[in-house]
Amino acid sequence: MKAITQTDENDPRSLALTEVDDPQLKSGEVLVKVHAAGVNRGDILQAHGNYPPPPGASEIIGLECSGTIADPGDTGREEGEEVACLLAGGGYGEYVAVPEGQLMPLPEGYSLTEAASVVEVACTVWSNLGMLAGLREGQTVLIHGGGGGIGTFAIQLCKALGATVAVTAGSDEKLETCRELGADILVNYKEQDFAQELKGRCDVILDIIGAKYLKQNLRALNTDGQLVIIGLQGGVKTEINLGALLPRRLSVRGTTLRARSLESKADVVRSTVEHVWPMLADGRVRHHIHATLPLADAARAHELLDSGEVTGKIVLEA
Amino acid sequence: MKAITQTDENDPRSLALTEVDDPQLKSGEVLVKVHAAGVNRGDILQAHGNYPPPPGASEIIGLECSGTIADPGDTGREEGEEVACLLAGGGYGEYVAVPEGQLMPLPEGYSLTEAASVVEVACTVWSNLGMLAGLREGQTVLIHGGGGGIGTFAIQLCKALGATVAVTAGSDEKLETCRELGADILVNYKEQDFAQELKGRCDVILDIIGAKYLKQNLRALNTDGQLVIIGLQGGVKTEINLGALLPRRLSVRGTTLRARSLESKADVVRSTVEHVWPMLADGRVRHHIHATLPLADAARAHELLDSGEVTGKIVLEA
Repeated sequence: MKAITQTDENDPRSLALTEVDDPQLKSGEVLVKVHAAGVNRGDILQAHGNYPPPPGASEIIGLECSGTIADPGDTGREEGEEVACLLAGGGYGEYVAVPEGQLMPLPEGYSLTEAASVVEVACTVWSNLGMLAGLREGQTVLIHGGGGGIGTFAIQLCKALGATVAVTAGSDEKLETCRELGADILVNYKEQDFAQELKGRCDVILDIIGAKYLKQNLRALNTDGQLVIIGLQGGVKTEINLGALLPRRLSVRGTTLRARSLESKADVVRSTVEHVWPMLADGRVRHHIHATLPLADAARAHELLDSGEVTGKIVLEA
Repeated sequence: MKAITQTDENDPRSLALTEVDDPQLKSGEVLVKVHAAGVNRGDILQAHGNYPPPPGASEIIGLECSGTIADPGDTGREEGEEVACLLAGGGYGEYVAVPEGQLMPLPEGYSLTEAASVVEVACTVWSNLGMLAGLREGQTVLIHGGGGGIGTFAIQLCKALGATVAVTAGSDEKLETCRELGADILVNYKEQDFAQELKGRCDVILDIIGAKYLKQNLRALNTDGQLVIIGLQGGVKTEINLGALLPRRLSVRGTTLRARSLESKADVVRSTVEHVWPMLADGRVRHHIHATLPLADAARAHELLDSGEVTGKIVLEA
C-alpha cells in the first residue's frame, strides 16, 4: 500500500507518499481503508522525533482517521461499515489496522472527512474535562490556547456542560473567535497576566503549555481546583511550590491519550461516543475544518498547523 | 477558663496553663467541656508560628478533643452528651466551641481519652485515602513515615480496604512495628532508595515529606497513580519534571484538613464516622496511645512528639 513516510530522518518536512508493507491484522483488529486522516500537533512532534509511537503501534504517522472496514478480521464487524477511528498511529496510509474498541460510528450528519478530524480532539477533551476532571454545571474552566483545535472544541463542550469558560489566546482576532463560540472571559496573554485576571477562580484548567505556566496556573485555581496538563509547549521542567497545593487542595495531573492501554482507550471511546456524539449531532458543538488537502501534501499540512495561525482542523484525504 | 497559651511568643516551648476568656458560641456551635485533647504535629508547627489557625478559629492550640456537651447552643443537642470533636483550634483548653458538623460519637468501646486522639488521624487518613484517592482492594499504597501516628493508622486502614501496603521508616524497629500492623513491603529509607524498590508499582502514595521526595515519589507511581501530599517535612520548593506526569497520567495533590470549610469538614466527619468508626469498633484498626499527660504538661508532650521516637499518640487530659 501507499503511505506517508519520512524520506530523510533528519528532516521532519521530508514527508512523501511511498510504497510500504500492508498492515498485518492482530486478533481483535479490523483493517480500515482510510478515507481521510486528521492532522494533529502530535503528528508534527512525531516527525520531529519527539513523540515516538507506543510499542507495537504503527510507525506511520496519524492519530485519527475515517474510512470503511475492508477486512473485519475476527471481530464479527461488517465489511464496508463506515467508521471513525482513534489510532495509536498509522492514519497517513491507505489502510490501517484498528483495535475494535477504537472504532466509532460517524457522528450523525457528519461526512467521512468531517468525522476523520473530530475523533482525537473529542476523545482528548472529553477524557480530560468530562471523565477525569468531572467538570460540571456552574464550575469555571480555563482553556489555554482557546483559538486552537483543542481550544475551540473545548469551549463549546464546556458551555454545553453549563460551565463558565475562560480562555487565553495571543490575538484579539482569536479571542473574538473564542467569544463567538461561547467563551465568557477572554484573556490576551500577550497583554494581560491570566493568573492576575483569574486568581483563585478556576475549578479546572486545561493546559497545553506546561512548565512556563505552572506557577500562574496554580494561582488561578480555586479551592479543590484541578490543573490538567495535556501538552508541554512551554517546557517540561520548572520549580513547583508544593506549599501552594495543600491549603487549597489543588491537584496537578498530566495525561496523554496515545499512551493509554487498549482497555483504557476503549473506555474513552465508549464514553466519548455516549456523551460527545449527541453534542455534535444537535450542533451544541460545531466542528470546523480549516483546510482539506490530499494525503500527498502531508508536509504542507504540517507546515500550516505549525504556523499557529490555523483556527479549526486540517484534514488529509486519501 | 484555663487554657494552654504561649507565654513567650519567641519560645515555642513556653506553653503554660493560663486564665483566658471563655469561648463565645456562634449559631450552630456547641460548647464542649474538654476531657482530653490529642497532640498533633500541627500543634507543634503552630507553636513555632508555622501553622496559624484559619480566620475565625480559636488562637488556642489543639486540633481534636473529646468531652461532654456543656451548652448545646441552638443546635438541639443534649447537654451531657459525650462527643469526640474535630477542631480548627482550641483543644488545649477547659472548654471549646465546636460547629455541630464536627461532632462525632465516641467509637464503640472507646473511652473519652482514647476517642480524643483518634479524630484527627482518622479524618486525615480517610479524607485522603478513602474519599480523595478512592483507594480500593487490590491496589498498592505507599505510606511514608509508617511508624508515625498517621502511618500506623494508615497501614491498618489500607489493609482493611484490601490494599497491598508498602511503608518507609528510618529504623528496623519501626519497620517491625509496621510489619506487625500488616505492612507488606518494608523500606528503610536510610539504607534503600524507595523509588528503586517500588518503581512504577504504587497506585497511591500518602506523603508527609513534600519537596525532598517529589522526584522519587513520581518514579514509584504506577500508571494513573496519585501522589497525595499532606505534610511538607522535607521542604516546599523543588523542581518538577511535568514530562513524567503525562505518559503515565500521574497526579500530584496536596491537602490539609484544617483549612477546609465548615461544610467540607462536616462531609469528612460524616464519611469518617460511616467508614472508619466500624473499623475501630471491631478492631480492624487499633489505635495505640503512647502516653497520657496532664494538660499542664503540653510543652513536655510536644517535646516527646518532636523527638520522632514515638509510636502511637500522645494525649493531654484536662
